[in-house]
Amino acid sequence: MEVARTIKSVREFVKAARSKGKKIGLAPTMGALHIGHISLIEAAVKECDFVVVSIFVNPAQFGPGEDFQEYPRPFEADLEICRKAGVDVVFAPGPEQMYRTENLTWVSVEKLTEGLCGRSRPTHFRGVTTVCTKLFNIVAPDTAFFGQKDAQQAIVIKRMAADLNMPLEIVICPTVREPGGLAVSSRNQYLNEKEKKDATFIYKSLQQCQQLIRDGVTQSDAIISEMRKILRQASSIEEIEYISVVDAETLQDVEKVEGAVLVAVAVKIGPSRLIDNILLDTSKE
Amino acid sequence: MEVARTIKSVREFVKAARSKGKKIGLAPTMGALHIGHISLIEAAVKECDFVVVSIFVNPAQFGPGEDFQEYPRPFEADLEICRKAGVDVVFAPGPEQMYRTENLTWVSVEKLTEGLCGRSRPTHFRGVTTVCTKLFNIVAPDTAFFGQKDAQQAIVIKRMAADLNMPLEIVICPTVREPGGLAVSSRNQYLNEKEKKDATFIYKSLQQCQQLIRDGVTQSDAIISEMRKILRQASSIEEIEYISVVDAETLQDVEKVEGAVLVAVAVKIGPSRLIDNILLDTSKE
Repeated sequence: MEVARTIKSVREFVKAARSKGKKIGLAPTMGALHIGHISLIEAAVKECDFVVVSIFVNPAQFGPGEDFQEYPRPFEADLEICRKAGVDVVFAPGPEQMYRTENLTWVSVEKLTEGLCGRSRPTHFRGVTTVCTKLFNIVAPDTAFFGQKDAQQAIVIKRMAADLNMPLEIVICPTVREPGGLAVSSRNQYLNEKEKKDATFIYKSLQQCQQLIRDGVTQSDAIISEMRKILRQASSIEEIEYISVVDAETLQDVEKVEGAVLVAVAVKIGPSRLIDNILLDTSKE
Repeated sequence: MEVARTIKSVREFVKAARSKGKKIGLAPTMGALHIGHISLIEAAVKECDFVVVSIFVNPAQFGPGEDFQEYPRPFEADLEICRKAGVDVVFAPGPEQMYRTENLTWVSVEKLTEGLCGRSRPTHFRGVTTVCTKLFNIVAPDTAFFGQKDAQQAIVIKRMAADLNMPLEIVICPTVREPGGLAVSSRNQYLNEKEKKDATFIYKSLQQCQQLIRDGVTQSDAIISEMRKILRQASSIEEIEYISVVDAETLQDVEKVEGAVLVAVAVKIGPSRLIDNILLDTSKE
């Protein structure tokens, strides 16, 4: 496995692979790799011939007061995970590589970024879409892999790629969960034992939602209210930022569950802000 | 010469050329091709092995009340010009190809787009940068060719390409002028004889600026005032939108001419809004 620290060097590795006709896969990450990332990497290794994992804690997607400084950076452990998973190149640029001069250019997606996490993180998604555009231009992958856990991000990236005719495929991999159901996240490691236990109520609330819909409940208000009751049982959940039932394509709130909907939750629990979601296609059930 | 009407088809032509190791050049245009465009195409033919000219009147870069409907579309004549100039593929997509669904994604460049033409055309540059990003993603050129006549556009596109790590080179070709000095533009054809004659005062004012600087005048105010006097001699110039002396990199107004400066003019004359500029590097003179 190669470690590329510069844009020039990762481009050379990819160019050599492409000249051999290899299909290039990219899993963009901020490091602190866990089994969720490993599932993306495994999907990439399965589907592509040459896999690049980028590790870059992107300042542009953190807002003021967010955890940019504290974000975990266990670089050696990350490399070991990549090596075991069969990655070909880890691209780990410093900020001086990624933002050489003052960045004046932003890629932004309207509407889809306004609700859900966009409400409390107004500059987050343009940071994500801009850095992903940069990574796509640098690595030129045939396929890029993202996780369903960040559902809004997944939809935003797919829309960006389609709107801008980016010459690649975006693959969204299923959310990976711990045995208690908690969606795996780098931010779970900020939690103590009690908080971690309480965090399982997030997925419990989503399972309850799924059950209610199976039982024929269709009013979003009623579903959200039942989910809120479950989340309130967890005393470390300090704030429910949102529980939303939205159209899975437009991300607009729906009054009634019909067709494909995304049910998404964000809570503050101890030092972490955690998100989770389920995608339901009621027309298929 | 091939004419590609769809994204799929232009990609196939380019892919075939690239597989033969050819260097791909792109000249993005809105059609109504004139000797200015021809100079871009000739530069592309000289520097590249396979030249694509795109012809697309991009609605996203016209503001309300601008000339999107009236913009000339002499398609057959454009094809003939391309054929003679040695173009390999004309990419002429319809709007349904370029904007399949509602476009939610914008590429925008801050600061550089705020002054000069950006003041009266607040959504123009994001329309240009977005469609150029799309064209770059569709055609994947090694080099793209733009004209110095649209000086602000040239600087914005170069900055966008650098900020987003686009894997291509941007080449800016010199402004082509009619015998009287008027910069060639598709919008010149809206002018009657008197207006066309009066329009030559735009370049006269820029030449006067150059002379003043050579004579040692450095105060922008003094230069602008002399240029204004010249433009006022042309009775069909209904409005001087701006005469600006700006830093050639940041596009910020400068009080004093020092180093590389751009002197740019925009006027309304009859039915047309015309722009022109000169780039001066006083440190080199």
